[in-house]
Amino acid sequence: TAPFLASEHQHIRYNPLQDEWVLVSAHRMKRPWQGQVEPSLLETVPRHDPRNPLCPGATRANGEVNPHYDGTFLFDNDFPALQPDAPSPGPSDHPLFQAKAARGVCKVLCFHPWSDVTLPLMSIPEIRTVIDVWASVTEDLGAQYPWVQIFENKGAMMGCSNPHPHCQVWASSFLPDIAQREERSQQAYQSQHGEPLLMEYGRQELLRKERLVLTSEHWLVLVPFWAVWPFQTLLLPRRHVRRLPELTPAERDDLALIMKKLLTKYDNLFETSFPYSMGWHGAPTGSEAGANWDHWQLHAHYYPPLLRSATVRKFMVGYEMLAQAQRDLTPEQVKTRSILGPLFSPISSKD
Amino acid sequence: TAPFLASEHQHIRYNPLQDEWVLVSAHRMKRPWQGQVEPSLLETVPRHDPRNPLCPGATRANGEVNPHYDGTFLFDNDFPALQPDAPSPGPSDHPLFQAKAARGVCKVLCFHPWSDVTLPLMSIPEIRTVIDVWASVTEDLGAQYPWVQIFENKGAMMGCSNPHPHCQVWASSFLPDIAQREERSQQAYQSQHGEPLLMEYGRQELLRKERLVLTSEHWLVLVPFWAVWPFQTLLLPRRHVRRLPELTPAERDDLALIMKKLLTKYDNLFETSFPYSMGWHGAPTGSEAGANWDHWQLHAHYYPPLLRSATVRKFMVGYEMLAQAQRDLTPEQVKTRSILGPLFSPISSKD
Ligand SMILES: O=P(O)(O)O[C@H]1O[C@H](CO)[C@@H](O)[C@H](O)[C@H]1O
Ligand SMILES: O=P(O)(O)O[C@H]1O[C@H](CO)[C@@H](O)[C@H](O)[C@H]1O
Repeated sequence: TAPFLASEHQHIRYNPLQDEWVLVSAHRMKRPWQGQVEPSLLETVPRHDPRNPLCPGATRANGEVNPHYDGTFLFDNDFPALQPDAPSPGPSDHPLFQAKAARGVCKVLCFHPWSDVTLPLMSIPEIRTVIDVWASVTEDLGAQYPWVQIFENKGAMMGCSNPHPHCQVWASSFLPDIAQREERSQQAYQSQHGEPLLMEYGRQELLRKERLVLTSEHWLVLVPFWAVWPFQTLLLPRRHVRRLPELTPAERDDLALIMKKLLTKYDNLFETSFPYSMGWHGAPTGSEAGANWDHWQLHAHYYPPLLRSATVRKFMVGYEMLAQAQRDLTPEQVKTRSILGPLFSPISSKD
Repeated sequence: TAPFLASEHQHIRYNPLQDEWVLVSAHRMKRPWQGQVEPSLLETVPRHDPRNPLCPGATRANGEVNPHYDGTFLFDNDFPALQPDAPSPGPSDHPLFQAKAARGVCKVLCFHPWSDVTLPLMSIPEIRTVIDVWASVTEDLGAQYPWVQIFENKGAMMGCSNPHPHCQVWASSFLPDIAQREERSQQAYQSQHGEPLLMEYGRQELLRKERLVLTSEHWLVLVPFWAVWPFQTLLLPRRHVRRLPELTPAERDDLALIMKKLLTKYDNLFETSFPYSMGWHGAPTGSEAGANWDHWQLHAHYYPPLLRSATVRKFMVGYEMLAQAQRDLTPEQVKTRSILGPLFSPISSKD
């Protein structure tokens, strides 16, 4: 039989962080596409629209009027999925019908007063301000809640219903499913190997140089070995950092810079305002915050939906929903010129 | 505090089959939607198009010519994600970089010679023929492979690139991730409670009558207590059946009937050809087929993406990708007239 070539021969890969497998079938990029194309993304967004509830001075659904903010603006989501005071469903009467209380807070964070910018179009000091709010909101909500999920849905394709640059923060009284998986995996790795999973992983990727997208003094961006989305990336600090508030001023400045670089690469890839969902994962907070969480390493996941162009996305459907995640190019191919063009091409590591 | 009302107060629910939690926040249906609407689905599909590679007599990508079939037509996918002879990646050199061999077969099954029909528009004998092929392909591919995943992606919204009525069959040398989860859960339930998880679950739903959508002599359709997609359903035989080939002729006829009823209800819900991904799960096959798989109960999952109308879908994005699945109405509300109209309204159980 032929020697194994990841770019030619399908195989499965393990995600040790979330305990999942992915089917990698590189040769599927060759199939023709006659399916759904997404509406073109290049619509003109007015810089200020007084009817847009995220704009400075606008009136929101609940009648509140936004301040004339000129930096970031954090406020309570008018249609929260989590509220602080929901009663408990009480004990379950059957093991197959288990429900539990869920309490929390949902906030919206506007990144900028203008609707027609996105993070990669903002200046480094402006991005730095966003990072500072991410850290402080983690601290504030984390005082009460064990999990503070910061996430950005960017682009209509990712269900974002408002073009104004913003993210959301959902804090919950429970550890969400994916947080639980990452907790279990990192805990197990630490006790078996004596160091944090993602610290060793980042070091290995720096050595192997096969999936690095960007490196800076304090940060790494790479396409994880187990990536599911075609252009998925993982953003990691080089230092062992458990949560956003622990980042030093220098690490925050450098984060603003590497985010701008990454998001500009993404925008350039298909010459579009690149859609994605992204979010931060750090050690749990709340009343247990003081426990030993040394197995955690702070990181951000970027999950962009596009596959072939600005309008053709990867569909995670039948096989993926019923059997297992599947991808159509290898994580290593994401770095090769042939698939991605010069703008997402191999970079030289600073190490 | 107010008494707990599932339709008013958010809570989390446990999926004992796939070991996952979902956040249920009923009141989120109230928020206005200004986000992406999908292209309208009502395009006219020609009954026969010689350039459509799924049509009788058409030439496919690999140059093969389809027979002039007049029932179903099963053939090898021209762009398979799984091939029978891929070499193995060999042993992994690091616990964080684990890859394994993946071998298999991908087939396409055309349901009907006409491109302008869908399962709910087909006759009961025609649907019955599809069911027979599902059973026989499970038997054929299951002789060699431990997992045979039958799934249908219906509609452009679900990444279906060809309107001709068809499903896919991917057989693999490995137990996919979700199959593994269902195996673990059903195995554990059986050893703790001495009966199959889904047999007890079906019985409970028949007693509780809160989430039943359809019942027949041999089958149940219900919105699972832990449903993630707004109109997700679970289709279960009443008898303990491990795999499709075990279905009796009477059970197959009855399945054709209940599928037609369910899919007609779906189409009527938003007056559109209702998109979904669906698939069958039964006990593993292959060389271990003879082992004791009594903890398995055959079932089909239906995962439709729509939320509010024929063109507004549920986006499983930021929070869902990074933290936990979240739904905007309760599974019980799916049955109430106020949300779904008379066509998906409470039915009287035959029991
Ligand atoms: O095989 P198809 O119909 O070309 O492709 C579709 O179904 C596959 C299996 O769920 C997915 O991997 C693809 O993303 C989707 O577009
Ligand atoms: O909160 P938004 O932006 O209205 O809603 C969006 O993000 C939420 C959190 O990921 C999802 O539950 C919604 O389906 C999506 O449309």
